[in-house]
Amino acid sequence: MDRDKILLTPGPLTTTLRTKLAMLRDWGSWDSDFNAVTAKLRASLLKVVHGDETHVVVPLQGSGTFSVEAAVATVVPRDGHVLVLDNGAYCKRAARLTSLMGRNCTLMPFDEAAQVSPAALEDKLKADASITHVVLIHCETGAGVWNPLEAVAEVCARYDKGLIVDAMSSFGALPIDAREVRFDALIAASGKCLEGVPGMGFVFLRKAILDGRAGNSQSLAMDLHDQYTYMEKTGQWRFTPPTHVVVALAEAVAQFEEEGGQPARLARYTSNYHTLIDGMARLGFMPFLDPSIQAPIIVTFNAPGDARYDFKTFYNAARQRGFILYPGKLTQVETFRVGCIGAIGPNEMEQAVNAVALALEDMGIASGEPAI
Amino acid sequence: MDRDKILLTPGPLTTTLRTKLAMLRDWGSWDSDFNAVTAKLRASLLKVVHGDETHVVVPLQGSGTFSVEAAVATVVPRDGHVLVLDNGAYCKRAARLTSLMGRNCTLMPFDEAAQVSPAALEDKLKADASITHVVLIHCETGAGVWNPLEAVAEVCARYDKGLIVDAMSSFGALPIDAREVRFDALIAASGKCLEGVPGMGFVFLRKAILDGRAGNSQSLAMDLHDQYTYMEKTGQWRFTPPTHVVVALAEAVAQFEEEGGQPARLARYTSNYHTLIDGMARLGFMPFLDPSIQAPIIVTFNAPGDARYDFKTFYNAARQRGFILYPGKLTQVETFRVGCIGAIGPNEMEQAVNAVALALEDMGIASGEPAI
Repeated sequence: MDRDKILLTPGPLTTTLRTKLAMLRDWGSWDSDFNAVTAKLRASLLKVVHGDETHVVVPLQGSGTFSVEAAVATVVPRDGHVLVLDNGAYCKRAARLTSLMGRNCTLMPFDEAAQVSPAALEDKLKADASITHVVLIHCETGAGVWNPLEAVAEVCARYDKGLIVDAMSSFGALPIDAREVRFDALIAASGKCLEGVPGMGFVFLRKAILDGRAGNSQSLAMDLHDQYTYMEKTGQWRFTPPTHVVVALAEAVAQFEEEGGQPARLARYTSNYHTLIDGMARLGFMPFLDPSIQAPIIVTFNAPGDARYDFKTFYNAARQRGFILYPGKLTQVETFRVGCIGAIGPNEMEQAVNAVALALEDMGIASGEPAI
Repeated sequence: MDRDKILLTPGPLTTTLRTKLAMLRDWGSWDSDFNAVTAKLRASLLKVVHGDETHVVVPLQGSGTFSVEAAVATVVPRDGHVLVLDNGAYCKRAARLTSLMGRNCTLMPFDEAAQVSPAALEDKLKADASITHVVLIHCETGAGVWNPLEAVAEVCARYDKGLIVDAMSSFGALPIDAREVRFDALIAASGKCLEGVPGMGFVFLRKAILDGRAGNSQSLAMDLHDQYTYMEKTGQWRFTPPTHVVVALAEAVAQFEEEGGQPARLARYTSNYHTLIDGMARLGFMPFLDPSIQAPIIVTFNAPGDARYDFKTFYNAARQRGFILYPGKLTQVETFRVGCIGAIGPNEMEQAVNAVALALEDMGIASGEPAI
């Protein structure tokens, strides 16, 4: 038997058959039919963040990290100074790519089990006037923390600093309103909460900062200003787009809109999340994070203390039952992660919990007592 | 009626249904099943150029241009000097991305209707010892020229210069033998003559030059050494791979092998090419290039002299009949291009010629007399 497995990961996700069926056609990347798909997709994406008035959106080939790098390369002047609010692995990656391209970069460390602190950010901005831009990861999937976007944006706006938001794993699920929250760039990707397939990212750029960004990027591939200018002029992507990924995303966004947009998606993922943590609690698993800062996107669980526990064995036992879990990414504690996102509902989460229970049985580890 | 159109372009191409059907499944990018697909694909790609002994292959997310940029960023030292042999638009793009990233770059211009000259290259290398690397576009799709890879590689090897080959539109169709031809990097992509869907590139790197390439790239996303090292260690891609594009390419490569590999693909494309030019000659269309330097990949035709000719109208009239043509990319002459590649055979080319004839009729332009 080779049924499709349910992906409980931060992406790639389980997508609908309708989304995948959209890929059964070949498109000319120069053709007006394909240009129309790109144009409609861009308009739909802008609506998700209510950014029609204030922002443009620029799609980019590659993984989400490519779009993060492109956002920094395009937005931050060569003599800029970037402060990365660091509470996890993706923050460190953003800092690494920023330093590599030659921009001055400072990491501001926070506990990986806590939100970043807007008050501490304010102190830092007061103390170091050379900082020009702040990078925030909206949902740090390293642990799963929901960072305080609105409060961080408020501080950045007050000190007139550029804000770059990596909203990779939050976009489409957690609320983001460009009318209320000022950001220079916000990055997301096809294969996350919009439930498309992986292969492209997209970056919202604030119109007010677009001028003067020409030639800022030292990379041709990563130059969002060039991509934007060309796309506005021709309706086409600069270089060959991943046509099948683009049409799959367009189809996924149509389903997103039919479901009721971001509020509906958040409601479904929240329901998935509750089904998951309630079920896991019955098995004795405690989430690593305090519930008040936990995004309903991906949950980090402390691994069982039992000496017979081994992630690889646990993973394979759950996988054999049709569920793909995700390893932990924390440095200090043994953990594993379970995603709540993708084209799945509480039924799949119930079954996932059951698969975890059976996996523990396989390993000879007793499930815990009901938590309630 | 909305039948799929035949793409007569340099990519994206018409792919088989079997290739597209491979995308109807979601894959965990961390999972062993997917790692096995990546490993098998990499082994198959190395075989295409007989590079098992001498080279490694590193796949990269994004369009082919991303892989060209990554190859230059990874292979050329920061104080290197790149000579680009320029006979077309893609040469100029390679030079632009090289200069942008801060590497010293010289364009060596040739006629866009001629091959680049190995003899002229040798003179140049004699005259300027500072040149460290040479960039060659194997098949320049701007006009369709088949450049002399073997002779250029021989000169580079003799002068001990690094050679970077953009084999985007030739790989899998034109012969390339890494046992005979020395190159430091050779770049191709999924959506070209292997007949996969677009969304990833791959770069062959010569093992002998790999050491010392760590940290050469100023871009994290474009760092092929980092991608290679991580992939060797974990079997995984560094950042989220375009899973559906990868499995589609694996399925396309399986069909490529079943067809008989590169010689069989070249034979089919050559047959497509002859069907095309013979048919077009009957309509009075002359190829722009001399047949001796024309690759059977994409053919540039001189546009009809008739004042009623207009590319947009012509394109739409052919498109209405199910065939997507490609605009010319030459600066001096009015041309259009027709691709011979993709999952198509002489039947499709006959029908394409017929569609062109009917398009001319629509425009009130008389077809020419039979050329023979």
